[in-house]
Amino acid sequence: MTFTAHINVMPLKELLDPQGKTVLGGLKNLGIQVQDVRIGKHITLQIDAASKEDAAKIAETACQKLLANQVMEYFEITIQ
Amino acid sequence: MTFTAHINVMPLKELLDPQGKTVLGGLKNLGIQVQDVRIGKHITLQIDAASKEDAAKIAETACQKLLANQVMEYFEITIQ
Repeated sequence: MTFTAHINVMPLKELLDPQGKTVLGGLKNLGIQVQDVRIGKHITLQIDAASKEDAAKIAETACQKLLANQVMEYFEITIQ
Repeated sequence: MTFTAHINVMPLKELLDPQGKTVLGGLKNLGIQVQDVRIGKHITLQIDAASKEDAAKIAETACQKLLANQVMEYFEITIQ
């Protein structure tokens, strides 16, 4: 069976997000009132696996080994 | 009230995703079997608004004016 893993990789909440601050300024210049902006990666993986749990394990391994730099980022995985 | 808009900005499905293909190759080199990878942006906005609908409108405007290049990308908004 083919599963889709939806992964969000975001900067740790304690860290300043310079990219987010830049976009926040841009939105304000356009007259769009927003209190804060944080920007990360959204990654979708198509995974062939026997079960949802197996697909989740593969996605978790992919995040730990390559997709997320866990010194500065955290990740959230949703399997569909 | 403060709402959080979770926005995914992804490359259009018809377009090749070179970044995704590179990561796909990297995962295969690590022995992680995945069928396809697509990479986009995950953006969270903190929005002060009177209602969820108002927050959704602000997020939609932000996407159309700045956050997404609609020639090559599509966006999905979830308000919490």
